[in-house]
Formats: sequence, C-alpha cells, structure tokens
Amino acid sequence: MAQLGLPTQLRINGERLQRSLLELAKIGATPKGGVCRLALSDLDQQGRTWVINQAKALGLSVSIDQIGNTFMRRAGQRSQLPPVMTGSHIDTQPTGGKYDGNYGVLAGLEVIATLNENGIETEAPIEVVFWTNEEGSRFTPVMMGSGVFAGAFSLEHAYSRTDQAGKSVQNELERIGFLGNEKIGEHSCGAYFEAHIEQGPVLEHHNITIGVVPGVMGLRWFDCVVHGFEAHAGPTPMEIRQDALYVASQLMQYVITLAKNHAPHGRGTVGMVQVFPNSRNVIPGRVQFSVDLRHPDSAVLSEMSASLQKQIDTLSAVHRMPITLEEVSYFPPCSFDLACIDAIRESSKDLGYSQMDVVSGAGHDAIYIARLAPTGMIFIPCKDGISHNEIEDARTDHLEAGANVLLHSMLRFAKPVI
Amino acid sequence: MAQLGLPTQLRINGERLQRSLLELAKIGATPKGGVCRLALSDLDQQGRTWVINQAKALGLSVSIDQIGNTFMRRAGQRSQLPPVMTGSHIDTQPTGGKYDGNYGVLAGLEVIATLNENGIETEAPIEVVFWTNEEGSRFTPVMMGSGVFAGAFSLEHAYSRTDQAGKSVQNELERIGFLGNEKIGEHSCGAYFEAHIEQGPVLEHHNITIGVVPGVMGLRWFDCVVHGFEAHAGPTPMEIRQDALYVASQLMQYVITLAKNHAPHGRGTVGMVQVFPNSRNVIPGRVQFSVDLRHPDSAVLSEMSASLQKQIDTLSAVHRMPITLEEVSYFPPCSFDLACIDAIRESSKDLGYSQMDVVSGAGHDAIYIARLAPTGMIFIPCKDGISHNEIEDARTDHLEAGANVLLHSMLRFAKPVI
Repeated sequence: MAQLGLPTQLRINGERLQRSLLELAKIGATPKGGVCRLALSDLDQQGRTWVINQAKALGLSVSIDQIGNTFMRRAGQRSQLPPVMTGSHIDTQPTGGKYDGNYGVLAGLEVIATLNENGIETEAPIEVVFWTNEEGSRFTPVMMGSGVFAGAFSLEHAYSRTDQAGKSVQNELERIGFLGNEKIGEHSCGAYFEAHIEQGPVLEHHNITIGVVPGVMGLRWFDCVVHGFEAHAGPTPMEIRQDALYVASQLMQYVITLAKNHAPHGRGTVGMVQVFPNSRNVIPGRVQFSVDLRHPDSAVLSEMSASLQKQIDTLSAVHRMPITLEEVSYFPPCSFDLACIDAIRESSKDLGYSQMDVVSGAGHDAIYIARLAPTGMIFIPCKDGISHNEIEDARTDHLEAGANVLLHSMLRFAKPVI
Repeated sequence: MAQLGLPTQLRINGERLQRSLLELAKIGATPKGGVCRLALSDLDQQGRTWVINQAKALGLSVSIDQIGNTFMRRAGQRSQLPPVMTGSHIDTQPTGGKYDGNYGVLAGLEVIATLNENGIETEAPIEVVFWTNEEGSRFTPVMMGSGVFAGAFSLEHAYSRTDQAGKSVQNELERIGFLGNEKIGEHSCGAYFEAHIEQGPVLEHHNITIGVVPGVMGLRWFDCVVHGFEAHAGPTPMEIRQDALYVASQLMQYVITLAKNHAPHGRGTVGMVQVFPNSRNVIPGRVQFSVDLRHPDSAVLSEMSASLQKQIDTLSAVHRMPITLEEVSYFPPCSFDLACIDAIRESSKDLGYSQMDVVSGAGHDAIYIARLAPTGMIFIPCKDGISHNEIEDARTDHLEAGANVLLHSMLRFAKPVI
C-alpha cells in the first residue's frame, strides 16, 4: 500500500473554474445576466448533458438514479470504499443567478481536473453529484433529489408531484432522459462536502473569504390571524376601536424583538401581510401575516415559538381580539459532522484564507445527505449577500478559494496516494 | 300678520316613518336585508320616482336642477323668503343599508306630513331635497349633487365623470329623466338641516338618543412608502437587515399614538397595506400603506401631519431607509352654524331626549350646503355603529326622536303661523 500524505502545494485553477461557470450559465441565460433553468425542463436537460460531457472528458463514469440524481465517479485505489462525494444542484430559480448550486457542482469537477493534471490518485473513490430539483420552483418539495436519496420522503411521492401545467416529475424525468435505473438506497456515501455561495451578507460584511458551516438553522413557519372589527375610520373614536392592524403591527415588532433577544443566530421575519378589507378609510377587521422564526438550536427555536404564543395571548387578552397562530412548516436544525467541519477549518487555515463560522440560514441538499453520511459545507461570499436574483455575483478569487478548500477537505477524507 | 309660536306638543308619526323607510328599502333590496341602489341606475330612478310620488301626495311641488338634485316644496305664507330645507340622499353603497341617507329624506317628508295633518302653516317655505350621488360608489367625486349645488366643483366636471362601464353622469341623468332644467346657482336656501344615522358607535356606546353635530372633521389622506432592502429571511442576520416592514409597523403604531395624543377628537387609521415582494421567506424590501388622519380643528390636523412627517424623518435617519409621505386628499374641517346647532339642542331638550355633541367623522351633503346657508345636523344611534353594510340598523324610537328634533328645529327657522 502506498504512502499517504497531503500535497499542500496543490491548487485548483480559478480561471478554468470561472470559464466553466460562465459556459454553463449560457444555458438558460436571461437578458439581465441571470439564469432560468427550471428543474426537468429542456434547458435542465441541456445543462445536465453539458455537465456530463465535462465529466466524461475528465474520465469519470456516470450513473443516474431513479430520481435523476447524477453521480460522476473518479475511481479510487480501493474501489470497495464508499466514495467521498461533493456536489450541489444545477437547476435554478426562474430569475436565478450563475452561482447558486452550479458553483458546488463545477467546483467538484474542478477538483477532479486538478487531481487529474497532477496525477494524484486517492484511496477512496471521489464523486461529483448534481441532485434533482433543489430549488423547488417548478415542483415541490424543495431539495427533492437529495430528499429522496436520504429517505426523507418516498420516490413515489416525488414522482407524483406536478408542475402548474400538470406535468409530473416522473414523466418529465423520462422525457428528458434522466429517469435512471440506479435504485434509491443502493448508492453508498462515505462523506459529503458541498461548496456554495453564502446567499447572505455575513462573509462580505466581515470581509472574510471562507465560511465554515457548523450547521443549518431550524425553521418554524406560522400563519397568524388577528380578528378585529371592521369600522369606519372617521366616526369611530380611538378608544372603542378593535383595530386588527394595530395589534398585528405590535406582533410584527415583537417577532423582530424576539429574534434580537436570541442574537446572534436568532432570525425573525414577517414577509407576507394581508389586510382586510384593505380600504383607506376602513379600520382593518382582520389581518393575516406570516412569521418565519429560525435558530440553530431546536430548544431555543421552541422557546422562541412559545414566547410568540405568550405575547399573542397577552395582546389578545388586553385588546379583546381573538388571535390565531398556526404552524405551517417545521424544519429541525441540522448540525454538520465535526470531522468534516474540522477538515474544512484546517484546510482553510493551511491555505491561508480568512475564515469564520457561518450558520446557514437557508436549506441545502447537504441537510438531507447529513442524515446518511458525515457532511460539511463551505461558504464563500456573494456580492451584497444577494441570491435567487439575476444580479447574483461572486468574486473569482472567492470562487477559487472555496474550490481549494473543497479540494483539500476532500483529500483529507479520500486520502491521496503519493 | 298672524301670531307666531312653537306648537310644543307636535310630534311626527314614528310608525309611518318606519313604514316609509321599509317601503323605499324594497327598491334595490338585497338578500341579506340591505339595499343596492347605485346613483343614476334604473333602481335609483325607481327610488326617486317613489319619493316624488310621496311628495306629490303630500301636495308638494317638485323641481329638479341640472345635476338631478330634486327639491320638494311646501309653500310658506311668505313665498319670497328662502326655504328652510332638509334632506339627504337616496343612493346607496353597493352593499348599503336602509337608513344611510334615506332616513334624512324620508324624515323630511314625515315632517311635512305632520305639518299637513295638524294644519300648520309656516312663514318660510319648507323644502325636502335629495342630492344626487352622495355615496360616490359609481361615480366620483362623492357628494356630487351637493358639491355642484354649492359650487365646490363645476357642473361640467360632474357631467364628464364616468362609471366603470364608461357611462357619463350627464348621459345617465338624461337616461333616467333627471337632467333637470333648474339652473345651478338659482335655488335659494335659507337654512339646511340634515338628519342622519351616526354611522359610528358613540351615541350607542353612551346610550344617548340625539347627537348634536357641531361640525365635521377635517381629513388628510397620505400614502407612505418605506424603502428597505429585499433579502432572504434565513441567511441575513438581524443587525444588517433593512426590513421595510419593521419600520413601517413602527409608523403604523405611531399613527394610532398620534390620534390618541389628540383625544378625544383625533383619529388615525392605517387601512391599506401592501408588502413587496410579500413572500414568506423574504425580508420586505418595500412597504406601502395609507394614513387617514382626522380632526375637527384644522390647526391640530396640520400639527398631526407635521408630527407624522417628523417621526418619519427620525425613523428614516435611524434606520437609513428612504421613506416618502405623499398627501393624496384633503378635506378641511367644517363647523356648522351656531343658530342651527342651538335650534337642535333646544328642540332636543324641549322634547326630553338625551343628547350629546358628536363631531361627524364622515362626510355628508351638509358639509357643502354649509358653504351657502346656515346648516346643522342631527345624528341618531345606529346598531353597533355599523353603516355602509347590509346589516345597518336603527331603532324605531331613535328614528322617531331624530325626526321630531328635525321638525322642531325647522319650525324654529320656518316659523309656524298660529
């Protein structure tokens, strides 16, 4: 057996990675500089085919599973070892950018290209994967391919989902030639790394290159409805009003206070508001609004939800208005693997990049894969924290740095044979 | 010349008035017990014709002016005196009630009926009027007939207004046979009284029968827009957000505080809210909302507006978000005539009804007529303060009391010949 060691001077080719990203971004390019490549569309088919051709040119073998997840494999010296995997998704939002998802997949191929051109073999096989329908823009649920892969929901459920035109996931997979034959549950995974733009402003704000992701926040979504009494704005004195918006706006304030009380990781957002009857001179009789609470600790998240309910009970009693709070979604927090996190932290340090921990506030395929195998995520800054937008942008040096950290983190698990 | 005096025992017939109200309410009756009789519609024509027939049966002469205002006149002993007038409107909201407007017109006819059956003549002529299109539901502006009558805007402007189907006021007046030939500006008015349901909850709340209306509140309508920065609810930490709704909801609170700071007459309402992009997991980038401020004193109303602007400037500076405030409407306050107010107060006292001052928060035809002649308004309670609603309701004894006060107030001006 050959000697193992880390080739510390090894670097990926940032220009080649950038060229590759811009090339893939041509498929579904929008006039405003973004990308629209919805899951299982003709453009998704073209994108998938382009990526597979790149992989084949790098000598990788390709397998596709029943939900269209596509695995591109570089053999290891010990083929019986489960592969060290990386990847993300290449489907986009309707007005998406060039980097969300695509970066994680193409950084993986760049890692392979770097190993190839340096003649480095690894003990464990290395795989690059793109998961089907991460965005959920055309078909829900989001993170569909990784969710099925991890057993979060069934293949049948995913197959039966339809888009607005009534087309099913199963038929669309078949139509674009990505209804694979590899059975769900039969693909092993030794470890999983995912490089991704942060989709938030924290790294840029702190002028840091690498975000080490300890985990992903838990999320609770609620619908809150305040029931007041509709009345004329003119003749109704202030003291006998039942103004639903007056109480609702106090709760909107409280959601923010609640998050700030659980700094630095607490998040609270009211994103959606509907006022009834929504007329200029009528005191609102009913206000419905959404509440989005997030925290990486499930106990704290529960505590935040309980505080919200308590505040609602208090305001309801004080103002004598019924207020309902209904939970509509819950994603528990996800903690990534300590060994993966360490690998990312150490690699980043060795490479001389500034780094900080950034808890992910958004969902990623890595959340589901973490249920099966040691998993870690690498964030790089994106311009102004903007994502899910055609103006999404990232700096070439950051893209390069993230791929270098990915390379060295994966090598710590796949073990180069020197 | 005959001796003058007040026939203190004189009372209107409450049952007859109630019957009359229910009869008129059949024209355009809705399944839920309300009335839909939009201005210048076929149903309005039927309603107008029914009222005119009632007037003719009481021996009144009828004249119609160029905007369709209809005057029903009982001669006085001194025909050269300007008439003492009363009235209101018979058009309704699309889901209106039986009493709003209709009560003022039919209470006027009941006053005439009472004078007739008691053989009481007056020095000045007495007229009952219904003004065209008070509600403004089909054609804007509201209070169109009284507005043209008082010269608040021109006949040409009113004629040119169209409904959603493109039909003009002029053509519709002509079609229903109410494009009269009496020229605007040629109808004299000695004094004007209007009886109306309160359309608010104050009288009922205080268990009072008669509201003496010293005036009508001034009103300022604004559109306020808070410009924040749209971002993902998950990855964006609280301290670097520019959450437009967080600031907007503080302003919504302030509007209420502002009104309470100017108790008891101050009013502040946010009735309409639009959040952009209005998505559950996106921090609002922009929030637009309406502000409705009212007060009977124009100086105080200006002060309230200035305070709002100051608060906006403060919050804009603190949160570094642009906030615009645009005035979209202004109605100055209106004070009614002291002699008319006294007549109502004294009549109510002589008749033994409980009374209190209630500043009107809503607009009425009386506001415009007050520009031409001494004017006063009499309010009676309506159930739960509800109006502009099919469930609008009023008690028979209150309807009767209001008409009795109207009768005696008008007699103080028209002077009975005994």
